[in-house]
Amino acid sequence: MGSLGLGRADSRHFKPLDPEEFRAQAHQMVDFIADYYEKIETYPVLSQAQPGDLRARLPESAPYRPEPLESILRDVRSCILPGMTHWLSPSFFAFFPATVSTAAFLGEMLCTSFNSVGFTWLASPAATELEMVVMDWLARMLKLPKSFMFAGTGGGVIQNTTSESILVTLVAARDRAFKAIGIESLRKLVVYGSDQTHSAFTKTCKLAGIHPCNIRSIPTSFHTQFALSHVLLRKVVEADVAAGLVPLYVCATVGTTSTAAVDPVEQLVDVANEYNMWLHVDAAYGGSACICPEFRRYLNGIERADSLSLSPHKWLLSCLDCCCLWVKRPGSLVRALSTNPEYLRNRPSESDSVVDYKDWQVGTGRRFKSLRLWLVLRSYGVANLQGHIRSDVRMAKLFEGLVKSDGRFEVVVPSLFALVCFRFVPRRRRVGPGKEDAMNRELLEWVNSTGRVYMTHTVVGGVYVLRFAVGATLTEERHVVAAWNLIKQGADSLLKSARYL
Amino acid sequence: MGSLGLGRADSRHFKPLDPEEFRAQAHQMVDFIADYYEKIETYPVLSQAQPGDLRARLPESAPYRPEPLESILRDVRSCILPGMTHWLSPSFFAFFPATVSTAAFLGEMLCTSFNSVGFTWLASPAATELEMVVMDWLARMLKLPKSFMFAGTGGGVIQNTTSESILVTLVAARDRAFKAIGIESLRKLVVYGSDQTHSAFTKTCKLAGIHPCNIRSIPTSFHTQFALSHVLLRKVVEADVAAGLVPLYVCATVGTTSTAAVDPVEQLVDVANEYNMWLHVDAAYGGSACICPEFRRYLNGIERADSLSLSPHKWLLSCLDCCCLWVKRPGSLVRALSTNPEYLRNRPSESDSVVDYKDWQVGTGRRFKSLRLWLVLRSYGVANLQGHIRSDVRMAKLFEGLVKSDGRFEVVVPSLFALVCFRFVPRRRRVGPGKEDAMNRELLEWVNSTGRVYMTHTVVGGVYVLRFAVGATLTEERHVVAAWNLIKQGADSLLKSARYL
Repeated sequence: MGSLGLGRADSRHFKPLDPEEFRAQAHQMVDFIADYYEKIETYPVLSQAQPGDLRARLPESAPYRPEPLESILRDVRSCILPGMTHWLSPSFFAFFPATVSTAAFLGEMLCTSFNSVGFTWLASPAATELEMVVMDWLARMLKLPKSFMFAGTGGGVIQNTTSESILVTLVAARDRAFKAIGIESLRKLVVYGSDQTHSAFTKTCKLAGIHPCNIRSIPTSFHTQFALSHVLLRKVVEADVAAGLVPLYVCATVGTTSTAAVDPVEQLVDVANEYNMWLHVDAAYGGSACICPEFRRYLNGIERADSLSLSPHKWLLSCLDCCCLWVKRPGSLVRALSTNPEYLRNRPSESDSVVDYKDWQVGTGRRFKSLRLWLVLRSYGVANLQGHIRSDVRMAKLFEGLVKSDGRFEVVVPSLFALVCFRFVPRRRRVGPGKEDAMNRELLEWVNSTGRVYMTHTVVGGVYVLRFAVGATLTEERHVVAAWNLIKQGADSLLKSARYL
Repeated sequence: MGSLGLGRADSRHFKPLDPEEFRAQAHQMVDFIADYYEKIETYPVLSQAQPGDLRARLPESAPYRPEPLESILRDVRSCILPGMTHWLSPSFFAFFPATVSTAAFLGEMLCTSFNSVGFTWLASPAATELEMVVMDWLARMLKLPKSFMFAGTGGGVIQNTTSESILVTLVAARDRAFKAIGIESLRKLVVYGSDQTHSAFTKTCKLAGIHPCNIRSIPTSFHTQFALSHVLLRKVVEADVAAGLVPLYVCATVGTTSTAAVDPVEQLVDVANEYNMWLHVDAAYGGSACICPEFRRYLNGIERADSLSLSPHKWLLSCLDCCCLWVKRPGSLVRALSTNPEYLRNRPSESDSVVDYKDWQVGTGRRFKSLRLWLVLRSYGVANLQGHIRSDVRMAKLFEGLVKSDGRFEVVVPSLFALVCFRFVPRRRRVGPGKEDAMNRELLEWVNSTGRVYMTHTVVGGVYVLRFAVGATLTEERHVVAAWNLIKQGADSLLKSARYL
């Protein structure tokens, strides 16, 4: 034994994954986190930190010697928590929520514990197949046609973000165009969204080499409640074709970021099909609601679209980052994204009998993310998830009702899903012209500065709008009502202020 | 109270993040995982599953009603585990390892529990600042110049994968070229790597719209131990310039995937600087070793490079996915990637006093990943991490020595870092010509089929090579020795087989 160094003395001294230490410390962390959730309402929702606060408190270099977990947890309490904007606070109504749940947390623990890399089927067979299974499960919950399912001729994949879902489908569409009309056509390819399409769309198109002049941002207005008009789309496409350009890709949104507007997929897909464009539906937020029959109509026409993405971390209690993408023709993705280096070759891949998810995404490595969705879907069941969506929608309606009941406020567009867009318009007071936006901004800043609620804003149709997005996992009606009371309190103070007389 | 629905009866019935249920179930999961680590050596390293095995065992639809955690854990044991390739097994020597540690696991738990989204500073101040801090810590451990640090004029960011690190820097370089010579130059831009550069490079270049004919894969050979020759690079660049093309970007690798070859950064950067190209160093695997002074020389010349990426999930005990990217000119990234939609606007961002990481990456959303690195660096300290790297290198040397001690085997290239490339060449037996590759393939398949060890292969210089990558967190010398004994056993059987006489 001696010369081969088999004795314990020659083996690793440093054991960073000792099962017993793991067990003890992970239990300690579970309690730390459960305590955090219990006390979460006591923290300011929006961090009251100033830029540089945390950096100033931490050392310039990593320690040379180990530090005990207790010191680290102490620093989490004293340095990190005060610098957090608490996305899981029940009084977080900003942006769209990022939901988490016990089941998602457990799934994430399992995923991390395996730390498997699923670039090919062989590298993690269960990771690949479970992802195929849960993507089909979710497709069934959404009543997607079989053409988007592995059980049919399509399939789904978990991406990190909507941006990546757009990037991979856009590149698939682009390369299909290259094949048809040559790679030199790049300069002529045109993509279409509305002025409400997420900013990720323009960014992604630029990443993919689409000429910035060929990225169309079609105007919307109050008239369509900020949905993309198929009539306008057709006009813009016709003009482009007349100018010798080549229509490539349309991004339709189900639940825009500003106002949760829904683009009319069924009508947009007519135009897309007519001009041989790829139609992608970005349902990052609104898609989750479509597991409820009463919302499913927003996906009407999906059977003629090319791809659909939806982020369960937004509204299906899965944690970040989890964007589900379904495509009708996986082959088009794989043709655009496949690589076949020798070091990843293996018999199952060569037999073409398996899915190698590396060819469905930007990167090579990938985690076992489907565990998280699998645990959520099984632990809660479709019934509870539908109930959860409906509960959020009901709370948003409650808030909308409260806004409507106060004559000093108006709802800017009828609330869709669980987002309420409203503003403070105290018409009975003589507010100076052009002062309304400033008043709303001031109201928002005051509300957020209390630390008791966090909301955000947008501007649509030239108007500054307050957004109240219900959906944080822990939110209950009492938090919605308390938020409304706080907003009213802010409004009262503003009206008393001399500035707006 | 009644009409506002403040009573408990009107509040949420379904509580997917109840702190007490969370506490109980997360403790249960901790024990499940600790038990898994304790028993991990009893599982076949490479899954023995056949394509479709798991899919056939799971239902076609998600359940309508909730299922208890016990049923799910039972299915993890009976369905998922048999389908896993156990990346954390101490006998996993395939690809490069994906390391995990208790500290990384705890950091990941915290990250998931906050579920914060750090697109802008304000959305999660501590998440942004802690990332800045740990990126500077790691930069100091690597002795990077201040030009790559926030403490200087540069900075770092955590990406998911090397592909994204290449994509964002490539696009920054591309857009810088657009600014200098116009967007119509896209067709003329040329990028350079070697035939050993990771397949992600070619894929990423295509994503960014680089013409496939302009992606140079410069040949390497045994002569340079598969490192990219700066002499050849210069010749190829000169030819491209003479042809009217525009050199854009060089990807140098520190630790290639096939053989852990190290491209000579110091010499390549001369060529890159001369032709005003962006030089990116992909040190995904080898970079981690550079925290040890004896390996730091592989980064010599980095002070004149533009960017560097390194994946601590590979060798610094952080779990997937975690790719650290440093850039010398963050402004060039931000110019290429920034977006400024109204719904994300806020005072700190507009004051330009903060970092908004959404402008450093492909996607918009991002997790609080720096917690993981922070816990690893603090819990273990630089000393232990250096010791861990050295221990892996020592085990690889041990394995290399064993290979050399057996005349039937040869080491194909001198081992670098913790990878040994070798093959079975029983020259004393009259092996039929051209049979050696087949023998090695058969040997590899037999070894992997035992479930006791998982290794992979590559082909370099036209030769089929077995790769033995040490570095799984739990590996000790006894596993290395056992693997070697298994390989010898396979070789003995092969030699007894009539096929190769």
